[in-house]
Amino acid sequence: MQETPPASGSLQLRVRYVECDPMGVVHHSSYLPWMEMGRTELLRSVGKSYAAMEADGVFLVVTKVEVKYRRPMKYDDLVEIRTKVEKASKIKLHHSYEIVLVERGGEAADQVCAVASTELACVGDDGRLTALPGWLV
Amino acid sequence: MQETPPASGSLQLRVRYVECDPMGVVHHSSYLPWMEMGRTELLRSVGKSYAAMEADGVFLVVTKVEVKYRRPMKYDDLVEIRTKVEKASKIKLHHSYEIVLVERGGEAADQVCAVASTELACVGDDGRLTALPGWLV
Amino acid sequence: MQETPPASGSLQLRVRYVECDPMGVVHHSSYLPWMEMGRTELLRSVGKSYAAMEADGVFLVVTKVEVKYRRPMKYDDLVEIRTKVEKASKIKLHHSYEIVLVERGGEAADQVCAVASTELACVGDDGRLTALPGWLV
Amino acid sequence: MQETPPASGSLQLRVRYVECDPMGVVHHSSYLPWMEMGRTELLRSVGKSYAAMEADGVFLVVTKVEVKYRRPMKYDDLVEIRTKVEKASKIKLHHSYEIVLVERGGEAADQVCAVASTELACVGDDGRLTALPGWLV
Repeated sequence: MQETPPASGSLQLRVRYVECDPMGVVHHSSYLPWMEMGRTELLRSVGKSYAAMEADGVFLVVTKVEVKYRRPMKYDDLVEIRTKVEKASKIKLHHSYEIVLVERGGEAADQVCAVASTELACVGDDGRLTALPGWLV
Repeated sequence: MQETPPASGSLQLRVRYVECDPMGVVHHSSYLPWMEMGRTELLRSVGKSYAAMEADGVFLVVTKVEVKYRRPMKYDDLVEIRTKVEKASKIKLHHSYEIVLVERGGEAADQVCAVASTELACVGDDGRLTALPGWLV
Repeated sequence: MQETPPASGSLQLRVRYVECDPMGVVHHSSYLPWMEMGRTELLRSVGKSYAAMEADGVFLVVTKVEVKYRRPMKYDDLVEIRTKVEKASKIKLHHSYEIVLVERGGEAADQVCAVASTELACVGDDGRLTALPGWLV
Repeated sequence: MQETPPASGSLQLRVRYVECDPMGVVHHSSYLPWMEMGRTELLRSVGKSYAAMEADGVFLVVTKVEVKYRRPMKYDDLVEIRTKVEKASKIKLHHSYEIVLVERGGEAADQVCAVASTELACVGDDGRLTALPGWLV
Protein backbone atom coordinates (compact mmCIF):
# COMPACT_ATOMS: atom_id res chain seq x y z
CA MET A 1 0.00 0.00 0.00
CA GLN A 2 2.20 2.80 1.29
CA GLU A 3 5.91 3.39 1.25
CA THR A 4 5.91 4.37 4.89
CA PRO A 5 5.53 1.21 7.02
CA PRO A 6 2.13 0.65 8.65
CA ALA A 7 1.99 2.25 12.07
CA SER A 8 1.48 0.16 15.16
CA GLY A 9 1.45 0.72 18.88
CA SER A 10 0.23 -0.64 22.17
CA LEU A 11 -1.39 0.49 25.38
CA GLN A 12 -2.07 -1.22 28.69
CA LEU A 13 -5.12 -1.05 30.89
CA ARG A 14 -6.66 -2.76 33.92
CA VAL A 15 -9.99 -4.48 33.46
CA ARG A 16 -12.66 -2.54 35.35
CA TYR A 17 -15.26 -4.27 37.50
CA VAL A 18 -18.05 -2.59 35.52
CA GLU A 19 -16.68 -4.14 32.30
CA CYS A 20 -17.40 -7.66 33.58
CA ASP A 21 -20.68 -9.53 33.58
CA PRO A 22 -22.46 -12.15 35.72
CA MET A 23 -20.30 -14.91 34.18
CA GLY A 24 -17.42 -13.21 35.99
CA VAL A 25 -15.63 -12.37 32.74
CA VAL A 26 -15.26 -9.28 30.56
CA HIS A 27 -18.46 -8.61 28.63
CA HIS A 28 -17.89 -8.97 24.90
CA SER A 29 -18.97 -5.37 24.23
CA SER A 30 -16.23 -4.00 26.52
CA TYR A 31 -13.51 -4.80 23.99
CA LEU A 32 -14.75 -2.18 21.51
CA PRO A 33 -13.93 0.87 23.66
CA TRP A 34 -10.48 -0.65 24.29
CA MET A 35 -9.86 -0.82 20.54
CA GLU A 36 -10.96 2.81 20.27
CA MET A 37 -8.42 3.70 22.96
CA GLY A 38 -5.82 1.81 20.92
CA ARG A 39 -6.56 4.03 17.92
CA THR A 40 -6.42 7.21 20.04
CA GLU A 41 -3.01 6.27 21.47
CA LEU A 42 -1.71 5.28 18.03
CA LEU A 43 -2.52 8.81 16.83
CA ARG A 44 -0.95 10.34 19.93
CA SER A 45 2.23 8.29 19.36
CA VAL A 46 2.68 10.11 16.03
CA GLY A 47 2.04 13.45 17.69
CA LYS A 48 -1.61 13.77 16.67
CA SER A 49 -4.77 14.08 18.69
CA TYR A 50 -8.11 12.71 17.60
CA ALA A 51 -9.76 15.38 19.77
CA ALA A 52 -7.95 18.04 17.71
CA MET A 53 -8.99 16.31 14.46
CA GLU A 54 -12.65 16.57 15.51
CA ALA A 55 -12.16 20.21 16.46
CA ASP A 56 -10.98 20.65 12.84
CA GLY A 57 -14.20 19.05 11.57
CA VAL A 58 -12.72 15.69 10.59
CA PHE A 59 -14.39 12.62 12.05
CA LEU A 60 -13.53 8.93 11.86
CA VAL A 61 -16.63 6.77 11.84
CA VAL A 62 -16.56 3.03 12.51
CA THR A 63 -18.21 1.30 9.55
CA LYS A 64 -17.29 -2.30 10.37
CA VAL A 65 -16.13 -4.28 13.37
CA GLU A 66 -15.14 -7.92 13.76
CA VAL A 67 -13.99 -9.55 16.99
CA LYS A 68 -13.00 -13.15 17.66
CA TYR A 69 -13.00 -14.03 21.35
CA ARG A 70 -10.60 -16.86 22.16
CA ARG A 71 -10.22 -16.87 25.91
CA PRO A 72 -12.12 -15.10 28.71
CA MET A 73 -10.58 -12.09 30.44
CA LYS A 74 -11.31 -11.18 34.04
CA TYR A 75 -11.67 -8.25 36.41
CA ASP A 76 -8.33 -6.71 37.38
CA ASP A 77 -6.44 -8.41 34.52
CA LEU A 78 -3.70 -6.26 33.03
CA VAL A 79 -4.43 -6.10 29.31
CA GLU A 80 -2.37 -4.91 26.38
CA ILE A 81 -4.10 -3.60 23.26
CA ARG A 82 -1.84 -3.99 20.23
CA THR A 83 -3.13 -1.86 17.38
CA LYS A 84 -1.91 -1.81 13.80
CA VAL A 85 -2.89 0.14 10.70
CA GLU A 86 -3.34 -2.57 8.09
CA LYS A 87 -4.42 -0.53 5.11
CA ALA A 88 -5.39 3.02 4.20
CA SER A 89 -7.29 4.17 1.14
CA LYS A 90 -8.31 7.72 0.30
CA ILE A 91 -11.31 7.60 2.63
CA LYS A 92 -10.96 4.41 4.69
CA LEU A 93 -8.65 3.09 7.39
CA HIS A 94 -8.30 -0.57 8.33
CA HIS A 95 -6.90 -1.54 11.74
CA SER A 96 -6.17 -4.89 13.31
CA TYR A 97 -5.94 -5.58 17.05
CA GLU A 98 -4.62 -8.16 19.44
CA ILE A 99 -6.06 -8.10 22.95
CA VAL A 100 -3.40 -9.68 25.13
CA LEU A 101 -3.45 -10.77 28.77
CA VAL A 102 -0.15 -9.63 30.29
CA GLU A 103 -0.78 -10.11 34.03
CA ARG A 104 -3.40 -11.87 36.14
CA GLY A 105 -3.40 -12.02 39.92
CA GLY A 106 0.18 -10.78 40.06
CA GLU A 107 1.45 -13.43 37.58
CA ALA A 108 2.92 -12.28 34.28
CA ALA A 109 1.31 -13.74 31.16
CA ASP A 110 1.41 -13.30 27.40
CA GLN A 111 -1.76 -14.73 25.96
CA VAL A 112 -3.77 -13.43 23.04
CA CYS A 113 -7.37 -13.49 24.29
CA ALA A 114 -9.03 -11.83 21.30
CA VAL A 115 -8.22 -10.63 17.82
CA ALA A 116 -10.17 -7.99 15.97
CA SER A 117 -10.37 -5.70 12.98
CA THR A 118 -12.17 -2.47 12.17
CA GLU A 119 -12.88 -0.33 9.15
CA LEU A 120 -13.22 3.43 9.61
CA ALA A 121 -14.46 6.03 7.17
CA CYS A 122 -13.60 9.69 7.21
CA VAL A 123 -16.53 12.12 7.30
CA GLY A 124 -16.77 15.88 7.54
CA ASP A 125 -18.90 18.16 9.70
CA ASP A 126 -21.82 17.49 7.37
CA GLY A 127 -21.66 13.71 7.88
CA ARG A 128 -20.50 13.12 4.30
CA LEU A 129 -17.54 11.01 3.28
CA THR A 130 -14.42 13.07 2.81
CA ALA A 131 -10.75 12.37 2.13
CA LEU A 132 -8.57 11.35 5.08
CA PRO A 133 -6.10 14.07 6.11
CA GLY A 134 -2.89 13.62 4.07
CA TRP A 135 -0.72 12.94 7.13
CA LEU A 136 -2.93 9.99 8.09
CA VAL A 137 -2.70 8.07 4.84
CA MET B 1 -49.53 21.79 25.24
CA GLN B 2 -50.76 21.84 28.85
CA GLU B 3 -50.76 24.62 31.34
CA THR B 4 -49.02 22.60 34.02
CA PRO B 5 -47.02 19.56 33.01
CA PRO B 6 -47.70 16.47 35.13
CA ALA B 7 -45.19 16.23 37.93
CA SER B 8 -44.64 12.49 37.67
CA GLY B 9 -44.52 9.51 35.34
CA SER B 10 -43.19 6.00 35.02
CA LEU B 11 -41.55 3.69 32.53
CA GLN B 12 -40.71 0.00 32.54
CA LEU B 13 -37.59 -1.76 31.30
CA ARG B 14 -35.92 -5.17 31.41
CA VAL B 15 -32.52 -5.40 33.07
CA ARG B 16 -29.89 -6.10 30.41
CA TYR B 17 -27.15 -8.67 30.91
CA VAL B 18 -24.50 -6.04 30.23
CA GLU B 19 -25.89 -3.94 33.10
CA CYS B 20 -24.99 -6.63 35.63
CA ASP B 21 -21.63 -7.32 37.22
CA PRO B 22 -19.68 -10.33 38.54
CA MET B 23 -21.75 -10.31 41.76
CA GLY B 24 -24.65 -11.28 39.50
CA VAL B 25 -26.55 -8.08 40.25
CA VAL B 26 -27.13 -4.75 38.50
CA HIS B 27 -24.01 -2.59 38.68
CA HIS B 28 -24.68 0.54 40.71
CA SER B 29 -23.76 2.81 37.77
CA SER B 30 -26.49 1.27 35.58
CA TYR B 31 -29.25 3.04 37.53
CA LEU B 32 -28.20 6.50 36.29
CA PRO B 33 -29.09 5.93 32.61
CA TRP B 34 -32.44 4.53 33.78
CA MET B 35 -33.15 7.76 35.64
CA GLU B 36 -32.22 9.68 32.50
CA MET B 37 -34.74 7.58 30.56
CA GLY B 38 -37.29 8.44 33.25
CA ARG B 39 -36.73 12.14 32.60
CA THR B 40 -36.96 11.67 28.81
CA GLU B 41 -40.28 9.85 29.08
CA LEU B 42 -41.64 12.41 31.53
CA LEU B 43 -41.01 15.09 28.88
CA ARG B 44 -42.52 12.92 26.15
CA SER B 45 -45.66 12.42 28.25
CA VAL B 46 -46.26 16.18 28.01
CA GLY B 47 -45.67 16.17 24.29
CA LYS B 48 -42.10 17.42 24.48
CA SER B 49 -38.90 15.87 23.29
CA TYR B 50 -35.54 16.39 24.95
CA ALA B 51 -33.94 15.75 21.53
CA ALA B 52 -35.93 18.71 20.15
CA MET B 53 -34.92 20.87 23.13
CA GLU B 54 -31.26 20.21 22.34
CA ALA B 55 -31.89 20.99 18.68
CA ASP B 56 -33.19 24.36 19.96
CA GLY B 57 -29.94 24.91 21.88
CA VAL B 58 -31.32 24.20 25.35
CA PHE B 59 -29.45 21.58 27.38
CA LEU B 60 -30.16 20.05 30.78
CA VAL B 61 -26.96 19.24 32.62
CA VAL B 62 -26.87 16.96 35.67
CA THR B 63 -25.22 18.88 38.50
CA LYS B 64 -25.94 16.50 41.36
CA VAL B 65 -26.93 12.88 41.80
CA GLU B 66 -27.73 10.85 44.90
CA VAL B 67 -28.73 7.19 44.91
CA LYS B 68 -29.53 4.91 47.84
CA TYR B 69 -29.42 1.23 46.95
CA ARG B 70 -31.66 -0.87 49.20
CA ARG B 71 -31.93 -4.25 47.51
CA PRO B 72 -30.03 -5.85 44.62
CA MET B 73 -31.66 -6.10 41.20
CA LYS B 74 -30.90 -8.88 38.72
CA TYR B 75 -30.59 -9.65 35.04
CA ASP B 76 -33.98 -9.96 33.32
CA ASP B 77 -35.86 -8.27 36.19
CA LEU B 78 -38.72 -6.08 35.01
CA VAL B 79 -38.11 -2.65 36.54
CA GLU B 80 -40.29 0.40 36.86
CA ILE B 81 -38.72 3.84 37.06
CA ARG B 82 -41.03 6.28 38.84
CA THR B 83 -39.91 9.83 38.20
CA LYS B 84 -41.21 12.98 39.85
CA VAL B 85 -40.43 16.68 39.48
CA GLU B 86 -39.87 17.80 43.06
CA LYS B 87 -38.99 21.42 42.53
CA ALA B 88 -38.20 23.86 39.74
CA SER B 89 -36.45 27.18 40.06
CA LYS B 90 -35.62 29.59 37.25
CA ILE B 91 -32.55 27.59 36.21
CA LYS B 92 -32.69 24.30 38.11
CA LEU B 93 -34.88 21.20 38.14
CA HIS B 94 -35.03 18.71 40.99
CA HIS B 95 -36.29 15.17 40.35
CA SER B 96 -36.81 12.21 42.65
CA TYR B 97 -36.93 8.57 41.58
CA GLU B 98 -38.07 5.20 42.82
CA ILE B 99 -36.56 2.16 41.14
CA VAL B 100 -39.08 -0.59 41.64
CA LEU B 101 -38.90 -4.33 40.96
CA VAL B 102 -42.20 -5.31 39.33
CA GLU B 103 -41.44 -8.83 38.07
CA ARG B 104 -38.70 -11.40 38.61
CA GLY B 105 -38.61 -14.85 37.08
CA GLY B 106 -42.23 -14.57 35.99
CA GLU B 107 -43.44 -13.59 39.49
CA ALA B 108 -45.04 -10.18 40.00
CA ALA B 109 -43.44 -8.01 42.67
CA ASP B 110 -43.67 -4.45 43.98
CA GLN B 111 -40.48 -3.69 45.83
CA VAL B 112 -38.61 -0.40 45.92
CA CYS B 113 -34.98 -1.39 45.31
CA ALA B 114 -33.45 2.09 45.14
CA VAL B 115 -34.42 5.71 45.66
CA ALA B 116 -32.62 8.62 44.10
CA SER B 117 -32.61 12.33 43.40
CA THR B 118 -31.00 14.59 40.84
CA GLU B 119 -30.45 18.28 40.28
CA LEU B 120 -30.28 19.57 36.70
CA ALA B 121 -29.23 22.97 35.46
CA CYS B 122 -30.25 24.54 32.18
CA VAL B 123 -27.42 25.69 29.92
CA GLY B 124 -27.35 27.20 26.45
CA ASP B 125 -25.27 26.42 23.38
CA ASP B 126 -22.38 28.31 24.95
CA GLY B 127 -22.37 26.13 28.08
CA ARG B 128 -23.59 29.00 30.26
CA LEU B 129 -26.49 28.82 32.70
CA THR B 130 -29.71 30.04 31.18
CA ALA B 131 -33.37 30.17 32.22
CA LEU B 132 -35.42 26.98 31.84
CA PRO B 133 -38.00 27.16 29.04
CA GLY B 134 -41.20 28.61 30.47
CA TRP B 135 -43.29 25.49 29.79
CA LEU B 136 -40.91 23.39 31.90
CA VAL B 137 -41.12 25.38 35.11
CA MET C 1 -43.29 -25.51 24.83
CA GLN C 2 -42.93 -25.94 21.07
CA GLU C 3 -41.33 -28.69 19.11
CA THR C 4 -39.25 -26.35 17.00
CA PRO C 5 -38.47 -22.92 18.38
CA PRO C 6 -39.18 -20.07 15.95
CA ALA C 7 -36.04 -19.01 14.18
CA SER C 8 -36.64 -15.27 14.40
CA GLY C 9 -38.11 -12.48 16.48
CA SER C 10 -37.96 -8.77 17.07
CA LEU C 11 -37.91 -6.22 19.86
CA GLN C 12 -38.13 -2.45 19.95
CA LEU C 13 -36.19 0.01 22.08
CA ARG C 14 -35.57 3.74 22.38
CA VAL C 15 -32.00 4.94 21.97
CA ARG C 16 -30.69 6.19 25.31
CA TYR C 17 -28.75 9.43 25.64
CA VAL C 18 -25.89 7.56 27.31
CA GLU C 19 -25.61 5.29 24.24
CA CYS C 20 -24.63 8.24 22.04
CA ASP C 21 -21.26 9.88 21.66
CA PRO C 22 -19.85 13.35 20.92
CA MET C 23 -20.63 12.93 17.21
CA GLY C 24 -24.27 12.98 18.31
CA VAL C 25 -24.89 9.43 17.09
CA VAL C 26 -25.13 6.00 18.70
CA HIS C 27 -21.67 4.76 19.68
CA HIS C 28 -20.75 1.65 17.72
CA SER C 29 -20.31 -0.43 20.88
CA SER C 30 -23.93 0.23 21.95
CA TYR C 31 -25.29 -2.12 19.28
CA LEU C 32 -23.85 -5.23 20.96
CA PRO C 33 -26.03 -5.08 24.08
CA TRP C 34 -29.05 -4.57 21.79
CA MET C 35 -28.21 -7.79 19.96
CA GLU C 36 -27.91 -9.54 23.32
CA MET C 37 -31.39 -8.26 24.19
CA GLY C 38 -32.57 -9.63 20.85
CA ARG C 39 -31.32 -13.09 21.82
CA THR C 40 -32.92 -12.87 25.28
CA GLU C 41 -36.31 -11.97 23.80
CA LEU C 42 -36.04 -14.70 21.17
CA LEU C 43 -35.65 -17.23 23.99
CA ARG C 44 -38.52 -15.66 25.94
CA SER C 45 -40.76 -15.92 22.87
CA VAL C 46 -40.41 -19.72 23.06
CA GLY C 47 -41.14 -19.72 26.78
CA LYS C 48 -37.51 -19.99 27.86
CA SER C 49 -35.43 -17.69 30.02
CA TYR C 50 -31.70 -17.23 29.62
CA ALA C 51 -31.58 -16.35 33.33
CA ALA C 52 -33.07 -19.78 34.09
CA MET C 53 -30.58 -21.45 31.72
CA GLU C 54 -27.72 -19.90 33.67
CA ALA C 55 -29.29 -20.98 36.95
CA ASP C 56 -29.17 -24.51 35.46
CA GLY C 57 -25.44 -24.10 34.78
CA VAL C 58 -25.69 -23.61 31.01
CA PHE C 59 -24.02 -20.49 29.61
CA LEU C 60 -23.92 -19.04 26.10
CA VAL C 61 -20.61 -17.35 25.41
CA VAL C 62 -20.09 -14.98 22.48
CA THR C 63 -17.13 -16.24 20.47
CA LYS C 64 -17.45 -14.02 17.42
CA VAL C 65 -19.15 -10.77 16.50
CA GLU C 66 -19.37 -8.88 13.23
CA VAL C 67 -21.24 -5.62 12.71
CA LYS C 68 -21.59 -3.51 9.57
CA TYR C 69 -22.74 0.04 10.26
CA ARG C 70 -24.57 1.56 7.31
CA ARG C 71 -26.28 4.67 8.65
CA PRO C 72 -25.98 6.58 11.92
CA MET C 73 -28.66 6.25 14.58
CA LYS C 74 -29.53 8.99 17.04
CA TYR C 75 -30.70 9.65 20.56
CA ASP C 76 -34.44 8.97 21.02
CA ASP C 77 -34.71 6.98 17.77
CA LEU C 78 -37.11 4.06 18.01
CA VAL C 79 -35.15 0.99 16.95
CA GLU C 80 -36.19 -2.52 16.05
CA ILE C 81 -33.78 -5.40 16.57
CA ARG C 82 -34.62 -8.28 14.22
CA THR C 83 -32.89 -11.43 15.37
CA LYS C 84 -32.69 -14.74 13.53
CA VAL C 85 -31.12 -18.11 14.30
CA GLU C 86 -29.12 -18.88 11.17
CA LYS C 87 -27.55 -22.17 12.15
CA ALA C 88 -27.12 -24.43 15.16
CA SER C 89 -24.55 -27.15 15.60
CA LYS C 90 -24.13 -29.38 18.65
CA ILE C 91 -22.24 -26.70 20.55
CA LYS C 92 -22.59 -23.49 18.56
CA LEU C 93 -25.36 -21.06 17.63
CA HIS C 94 -25.20 -18.56 14.79
CA HIS C 95 -27.49 -15.53 14.80
CA SER C 96 -27.97 -12.70 12.33
CA TYR C 97 -29.41 -9.28 13.13
CA GLU C 98 -30.91 -6.28 11.43
CA ILE C 99 -30.91 -3.03 13.37
CA VAL C 100 -33.76 -1.01 11.92
CA LEU C 101 -34.81 2.60 12.44
CA VAL C 102 -38.60 2.61 12.81
CA GLU C 103 -39.27 6.14 14.08
CA ARG C 104 -37.29 9.36 14.38
CA GLY C 105 -38.63 12.63 15.71
CA GLY C 106 -42.20 11.35 15.51
CA GLU C 107 -41.86 10.27 11.86
CA ALA C 108 -42.24 6.58 10.99
CA ALA C 109 -39.30 5.02 9.13
CA ASP C 110 -38.13 1.61 7.98
CA GLN C 111 -34.43 1.78 7.37
CA VAL C 112 -31.83 -0.88 8.07
CA CYS C 113 -29.01 1.02 9.81
CA ALA C 114 -26.78 -1.94 10.66
CA VAL C 115 -26.51 -5.66 10.01
CA ALA C 116 -24.65 -8.06 12.24
CA SER C 117 -23.90 -11.66 13.04
CA THR C 118 -22.71 -13.54 16.11
CA GLU C 119 -21.43 -16.98 16.99
CA LEU C 120 -22.14 -18.34 20.47
CA ALA C 121 -20.71 -21.40 22.15
CA CYS C 122 -22.32 -23.35 24.95
CA VAL C 123 -20.24 -23.82 28.11
CA GLY C 124 -20.95 -25.40 31.45
CA ASP C 125 -20.33 -24.24 35.01
CA ASP C 126 -16.69 -25.21 34.60
CA GLY C 127 -16.18 -22.97 31.57
CA ARG C 128 -15.79 -25.96 29.23
CA LEU C 129 -17.63 -26.43 25.97
CA THR C 130 -20.73 -28.53 26.35
CA ALA C 131 -23.63 -29.57 24.15
CA LEU C 132 -26.45 -27.08 23.65
CA PRO C 133 -29.68 -28.05 25.43
CA GLY C 134 -31.71 -30.25 23.08
CA TRP C 135 -34.65 -27.83 22.84
CA LEU C 136 -32.34 -25.07 21.55
CA VAL C 137 -30.90 -26.93 18.59
CA MET D 1 -12.39 7.16 63.87
CA GLN D 2 -9.33 4.95 63.83
CA GLU D 3 -5.86 5.25 65.26
CA THR D 4 -4.31 4.45 61.91
CA PRO D 5 -4.72 7.45 59.60
CA PRO D 6 -7.36 7.15 56.88
CA ALA D 7 -5.90 5.75 53.70
CA SER D 8 -5.87 7.77 50.53
CA GLY D 9 -4.48 7.40 47.06
CA SER D 10 -4.84 8.53 43.49
CA LEU D 11 -4.92 7.17 39.97
CA GLN D 12 -4.87 8.79 36.56
CA LEU D 13 -6.86 7.90 33.46
CA ARG D 14 -7.65 9.29 30.03
CA VAL D 15 -11.27 10.04 29.24
CA ARG D 16 -12.53 7.57 26.65
CA TYR D 17 -14.62 8.64 23.67
CA VAL D 18 -17.35 6.19 24.67
CA GLU D 19 -17.60 7.90 28.08
CA CYS D 20 -18.76 11.14 26.47
CA ASP D 21 -22.22 12.09 25.28
CA PRO D 22 -23.81 14.24 22.56
CA MET D 23 -23.10 17.39 24.59
CA GLY D 24 -19.45 16.60 23.95
CA VAL D 25 -18.70 16.10 27.64
CA VAL D 26 -18.27 13.14 29.96
CA HIS D 27 -21.65 11.56 30.72
CA HIS D 28 -22.48 11.88 34.41
CA SER D 29 -22.73 8.09 34.84
CA SER D 30 -19.12 7.61 33.68
CA TYR D 31 -17.73 8.98 36.94
CA LEU D 32 -19.00 6.02 38.98
CA PRO D 33 -16.73 3.39 37.38
CA TRP D 34 -13.81 5.80 37.88
CA MET D 35 -14.55 5.95 41.60
CA GLU D 36 -14.68 2.14 41.66
CA MET D 37 -11.24 2.10 40.03
CA GLY D 38 -10.07 4.51 42.73
CA ARG D 39 -11.16 2.04 45.41
CA THR D 40 -9.49 -0.89 43.62
CA GLU D 41 -6.18 0.97 43.38
CA LEU D 42 -6.42 2.11 47.01
CA LEU D 43 -6.62 -1.56 48.05
CA ARG D 44 -3.75 -2.46 45.73
CA SER D 45 -1.61 0.31 47.26
CA VAL D 46 -1.85 -1.47 50.63
CA GLY D 47 -0.98 -4.78 49.00
CA LYS D 48 -4.52 -6.11 48.74
CA SER D 49 -6.62 -7.12 45.77
CA TYR D 50 -10.39 -6.76 45.62
CA ALA D 51 -10.42 -9.67 43.14
CA ALA D 52 -8.78 -11.84 45.83
CA MET D 53 -11.28 -10.62 48.44
CA GLU D 54 -14.15 -11.78 46.23
CA ALA D 55 -12.42 -15.12 45.68
CA ASP D 56 -12.47 -15.40 49.51
CA GLY D 57 -16.23 -14.78 49.53
CA VAL D 58 -16.11 -11.18 50.79
CA PHE D 59 -17.94 -8.58 48.68
CA LEU D 60 -18.20 -4.82 48.99
CA VAL D 61 -21.60 -3.57 47.86
CA VAL D 62 -22.28 0.10 47.08
CA THR D 63 -25.23 1.19 49.23
CA LYS D 64 -25.06 4.94 48.61
CA VAL D 65 -23.54 7.29 46.08
CA GLU D 66 -23.48 11.07 45.88
CA VAL D 67 -21.79 13.09 43.15
CA LYS D 68 -21.63 16.86 42.68
CA TYR D 69 -20.61 17.88 39.17
CA ARG D 70 -18.92 21.29 39.09
CA ARG D 71 -17.32 21.58 35.66
CA PRO D 72 -17.61 19.48 32.49
CA MET D 73 -14.85 17.08 31.52
CA LYS D 74 -14.04 16.16 27.93
CA TYR D 75 -12.79 13.36 25.72
CA ASP D 76 -9.04 12.82 26.01
CA ASP D 77 -8.75 14.83 29.27
CA LEU D 78 -6.21 13.40 31.70
CA VAL D 79 -8.08 12.89 34.95
CA GLU D 80 -6.90 12.14 38.45
CA ILE D 81 -9.17 10.30 40.86
CA ARG D 82 -8.26 11.12 44.46
CA THR D 83 -9.81 8.59 46.80
CA LYS D 84 -9.90 8.69 50.58
CA VAL D 85 -11.32 6.40 53.26
CA GLU D 86 -13.32 8.76 55.44
CA LYS D 87 -14.75 6.38 57.99
CA ALA D 88 -15.02 2.66 58.64
CA SER D 89 -17.45 0.92 60.94
CA LYS D 90 -17.70 -2.81 61.56
CA ILE D 91 -19.67 -3.39 58.35
CA LYS D 92 -19.50 -0.14 56.38
CA LEU D 93 -16.86 1.89 54.56
CA HIS D 94 -17.20 5.55 53.62
CA HIS D 95 -15.05 7.01 50.85
CA SER D 96 -14.74 10.51 49.45
CA TYR D 97 -13.44 11.41 45.99
CA GLU D 98 -12.14 14.35 44.06
CA ILE D 99 -12.24 14.09 40.27
CA VAL D 100 -9.51 16.41 39.06
CA LEU D 101 -8.62 17.61 35.57
CA VAL D 102 -4.82 17.44 35.30
CA GLU D 103 -4.28 17.93 31.56
CA ARG D 104 -6.38 19.03 28.60
CA GLY D 105 -5.15 19.39 25.04
CA GLY D 106 -1.54 19.14 26.18
CA GLU D 107 -1.93 21.89 28.80
CA ALA D 108 -1.40 21.02 32.47
CA ALA D 109 -4.30 21.85 34.78
CA ASP D 110 -5.37 21.27 38.38
CA GLN D 111 -9.08 21.76 38.60
CA VAL D 112 -11.55 19.82 40.73
CA CYS D 113 -14.40 19.00 38.33
CA ALA D 114 -16.47 16.81 40.65
CA VAL D 115 -16.59 15.70 44.27
CA ALA D 116 -18.28 12.56 45.45
CA SER D 117 -18.85 10.16 48.32
CA THR D 118 -19.89 6.54 48.62
CA GLU D 119 -20.99 4.14 51.33
CA LEU D 120 -20.14 0.46 50.94
CA ALA D 121 -21.40 -2.49 52.95
CA CYS D 122 -19.64 -5.80 53.37
CA VAL D 123 -21.62 -8.90 52.41
CA GLY D 124 -20.76 -12.58 52.30
CA ASP D 125 -21.34 -15.26 49.67
CA ASP D 126 -24.96 -15.48 50.83
CA GLY D 127 -25.62 -11.78 50.21
CA ARG D 128 -25.95 -11.06 53.94
CA LEU D 129 -24.17 -8.28 55.79
CA THR D 130 -20.98 -9.45 57.40
CA ALA D 131 -18.08 -7.83 59.25
CA LEU D 132 -15.39 -6.17 57.16
CA PRO D 133 -12.09 -8.08 57.16
CA GLY D 134 -10.01 -6.90 60.13
CA TRP D 135 -7.19 -5.52 57.96
CA LEU D 136 -9.66 -3.21 56.16
CA VAL D 137 -11.07 -1.46 59.21
